[in-house]
Amino acid sequence: MQKTRLDTARIRAARRVIDPLFLNTPLYRCEPLEPVMDCKVSIKLETANPVRSFKGRGAELVTEEVVANGGSALVCASAGNLGQALAWSGRRRGLDVKVVARRQAPPVKLERMRALGATLELVDGDFEQARERAVVLAQRDGVRLVEDSLDLSTCEGAATIGLELAESTSGFDTVLIALGGGALATGIGHVLRTLAPGVEVVCVQPKGAPALTLSWRRRQVVNTETMETIADGVAGRFPIPEVLQDLLLVADDAVLVEEESIVAGMRLLLEHAGLVVEPSAALGLAAVLEDRERFAGRHVVTIVCGSNVELEAYRGWAW
Amino acid sequence: MQKTRLDTARIRAARRVIDPLFLNTPLYRCEPLEPVMDCKVSIKLETANPVRSFKGRGAELVTEEVVANGGSALVCASAGNLGQALAWSGRRRGLDVKVVARRQAPPVKLERMRALGATLELVDGDFEQARERAVVLAQRDGVRLVEDSLDLSTCEGAATIGLELAESTSGFDTVLIALGGGALATGIGHVLRTLAPGVEVVCVQPKGAPALTLSWRRRQVVNTETMETIADGVAGRFPIPEVLQDLLLVADDAVLVEEESIVAGMRLLLEHAGLVVEPSAALGLAAVLEDRERFAGRHVVTIVCGSNVELEAYRGWAW
Repeated sequence: MQKTRLDTARIRAARRVIDPLFLNTPLYRCEPLEPVMDCKVSIKLETANPVRSFKGRGAELVTEEVVANGGSALVCASAGNLGQALAWSGRRRGLDVKVVARRQAPPVKLERMRALGATLELVDGDFEQARERAVVLAQRDGVRLVEDSLDLSTCEGAATIGLELAESTSGFDTVLIALGGGALATGIGHVLRTLAPGVEVVCVQPKGAPALTLSWRRRQVVNTETMETIADGVAGRFPIPEVLQDLLLVADDAVLVEEESIVAGMRLLLEHAGLVVEPSAALGLAAVLEDRERFAGRHVVTIVCGSNVELEAYRGWAW
Repeated sequence: MQKTRLDTARIRAARRVIDPLFLNTPLYRCEPLEPVMDCKVSIKLETANPVRSFKGRGAELVTEEVVANGGSALVCASAGNLGQALAWSGRRRGLDVKVVARRQAPPVKLERMRALGATLELVDGDFEQARERAVVLAQRDGVRLVEDSLDLSTCEGAATIGLELAESTSGFDTVLIALGGGALATGIGHVLRTLAPGVEVVCVQPKGAPALTLSWRRRQVVNTETMETIADGVAGRFPIPEVLQDLLLVADDAVLVEEESIVAGMRLLLEHAGLVVEPSAALGLAAVLEDRERFAGRHVVTIVCGSNVELEAYRGWAW
C-alpha cells in the first residue's frame, strides 16, 4: 500500500517505551450485547488505567521524546484526555505540562488535569480556539508543542492498540473506531492494513462534528463552521491535511451518527457490559445501531476509548 | 510457615491452563479516590472479561480437570458468579453444567448463567440451601460436584491474582479482599504470604454475613442462623473447616463492615473510578471508610472482584 507517515517497526518499538499499565488492555467478547446488536461484539477496553483513556499510550512516547531531546516542558491543546495523559506521563518525567482547554470542557477533565499537576489555560470557544492558543504559547515560551494526531507519536502510541488487535486470536472482521483528530483511527488503521488487511476499518464520528469524515469522503480537507455534539472528545472543525492523507490510506469507511444513537450506545454499554463510558466511546455501537443490516452476523471490535465523563451529565444520558 | 492446602508451583502452572482472557488483569493507582480514602489506592480489576468476575480463573482449572478425568458434566451451587464462570468454561469444553442457585439471586446473574448454557435449578432459602441441594444432585446423578472454596482449583485459580500482585512493582503494603467462602482470600493470601510476606492481608466481610470472619477470630467454625446483606456474592452461613484452616494461616485480619459502608464504597468507585461494581467488590473500600486511621498513609490494593449487579438495584444504591 501507499505509505502513511506511520512506521510499523517504530510502533513495535514503542511498546518498550510505554508504561505497561497502558498496554495489553482487555479484549473480550460481550455476548449480552450481541442479541441487541445483531452481531458478535468484542470490547477493547482502554479505560482501566490511571488516565481512563487510550491517550496514555501516545503521551508516554511524546514525553519520552521531550526528555530525550533535553526538553523540560510541553504545551498542548486538549479536550481533556490528552491533557490528562500528558500530565500523568510528564509528571513522572519531571516535565512542566501546560494544557489549553475549553472553558466548557467537562469539569471532571479539567480537575483531573490540574490534580495531575498540569497548568491549565482555559479559552472561550471550541477546541479549535484552544489549538490556536497552544500554538501561540509554544512559540512565545519556546516550548515543545504537542499537536494531537499531527504529532506522529500520538498516532503511533494509539497504533499499539492495533498491534494488540492484530495479535489476538479473537477472529473479528471489523473494527469500529471513534474519529476525532484522527490519531486513534490512523494508528489502528495503519497496523491493521499492514498486519490484518482483511479487517474492515470503520471510523465513526458524530453528525454534529463531521469535519474529518466529510474530508475523508471528498478526499480533501473540509472545515466546518460550527459543531454540536455531546462527544466532546472527538469534536474538531479543522482537519489536519497530513492526518487526512493517512486516513485516506487506512480507513475503509467513515460514518456519521446521530446524538441519540451515541446516547443509546452509552446506555447499552452500561446495561449489558457494566461500563460507564464517555460519549466518544459509544460511537462504535452507535454506528451498528444505525445500520444493523450492514453489520449483521459480523464480529466487530469496538474500541472503548475513554471513560472521563461528567457523572451528572452521564446520569441524564444513560440512566 | 505452616502449610495451607494450596501449592505455589501448582498455582504457577495454572496460568498455562487458564484462558489468558482472565489473566494479567489491570492493576493501577486510582488517585482520585485517594483524598477521600486518606491512603494510596490501587485497583485490581477483575471485571473486564466475559463473565465479569474473578471466578473465570478457577472455573478454567475446574473444567479442565473434569475433562482430563473423562467427565462430561458438573454441578455446583452458586450465588451467580461461579455459575457463570463454570458455564462459560464448561461450554467451550463441551461440558453439561448444572447450577443450583437461590431463587432470589439477582435476575441478571440467573439470566447470564442460562444464556451461557447452564441448566439452572432454583431453590428457596439462602446459599446454604443451594449448597445442600447441589450435593444431593451430584450424588444422585453421579456427577462431579464443584464446591467453591473447598475445591482446591477454585482457590488456586483465584491465587493467580496473588501471583500478579506479587510480581507487580506498584509497592503496595496492604491488600483488601472480599471474604465469602474463602477461595479468593486463601488464594491471594497464600501467594502473598509466600512471595510477599510483608504485605498485610485484610479480609472484609459484611457484618450481616459474618460467619467466616467470626470463625477466623475464634479459630473454630462458627455457623450463623441467618444473614442479611446486599453483598449476595459473599453471603454464606456455614464456613468450611479446611478453608478456615487455610485462612488462619494466611490472613492478617478479618474485618466486618456495615451495609451503608458497602453502598458508600460502590458510590466512590462509580464517582472516582468510573466503575460499576457489585456490592462485594466494594467491601475493601468499605473497610477503609470505617477505619481511616488504620489505613492512613498506606498503599492498599482493593480487588474489584465482580460487576454482575442488577442495574435497578444499583441505581438505588449508588446513584
